[in-house]
Amino acid sequence: MKLERIVLEPIGVVRSPLRDRAEAPNQGSEGAPDATIELSPGLRDGLRGIEAGDELVVVTWLHRSDRSVLQTHPRGDRSLPLTGVFKTRSPDRPNPLGLHRVTVRELDGAVLKVGPLEAIDGTPVVDLKVALRGPAGP
Amino acid sequence: MKLERIVLEPIGVVRSPLRDRAEAPNQGSEGAPDATIELSPGLRDGLRGIEAGDELVVVTWLHRSDRSVLQTHPRGDRSLPLTGVFKTRSPDRPNPLGLHRVTVRELDGAVLKVGPLEAIDGTPVVDLKVALRGPAGP
Repeated sequence: MKLERIVLEPIGVVRSPLRDRAEAPNQGSEGAPDATIELSPGLRDGLRGIEAGDELVVVTWLHRSDRSVLQTHPRGDRSLPLTGVFKTRSPDRPNPLGLHRVTVRELDGAVLKVGPLEAIDGTPVVDLKVALRGPAGP
Repeated sequence: MKLERIVLEPIGVVRSPLRDRAEAPNQGSEGAPDATIELSPGLRDGLRGIEAGDELVVVTWLHRSDRSVLQTHPRGDRSLPLTGVFKTRSPDRPNPLGLHRVTVRELDGAVLKVGPLEAIDGTPVVDLKVALRGPAGP
């Protein structure tokens, strides 16, 4: 299998009151705060049309993750059976990409306020997409 | 803003009857066929517990995309207003990651049959995650 390496350029960064993984809930819907995404100013045109109330998927790079992990107890609950990371949402996985469905609170230039978002302060953002409605999601 | 480059190692590849972008529907739910994901054999442990009927999010690298595009007409429909790519699902965007919600049809070793999937043959796969139910998705 010929598989070439892929280089991502972060498009921005998360600014959040959450400072480390221990503080962060497993999912945004589990009590995460609002956060700010500072987009690279040169990519501002890519936000055209985004407004308060829009539902987006934020794709992050979970930079504090362990890329060597292949199996885990879901949600860190050791009473649950050891499960392949590809059947979980664990941040520890070979390519630790995070998917976060958020609501846009406010857009000011290249700064997007969104929430709730469980990613910690300093997390690189690699993509934003409109969320799809219904079972055709994500 | 200090933003370091990120290197992804593909975890596998899509095998599909779809051979080029012109043939592929915009979303899997719009008539895409089933496809096969050939996972790197060394990552097989990461599939533990996956079975037919599971709903997964496949994250791909849309390798035929134009990374310089920041605005587009959604769904290629020129009657729709020019929109920032971060408010669309266009494959053309700075980091062309694809998100595809699929159902597992069959797992055989490191080969996963899933569907429907609109990614074309040869598309690198970079992550798999369990799909979340309801509005907390993706």
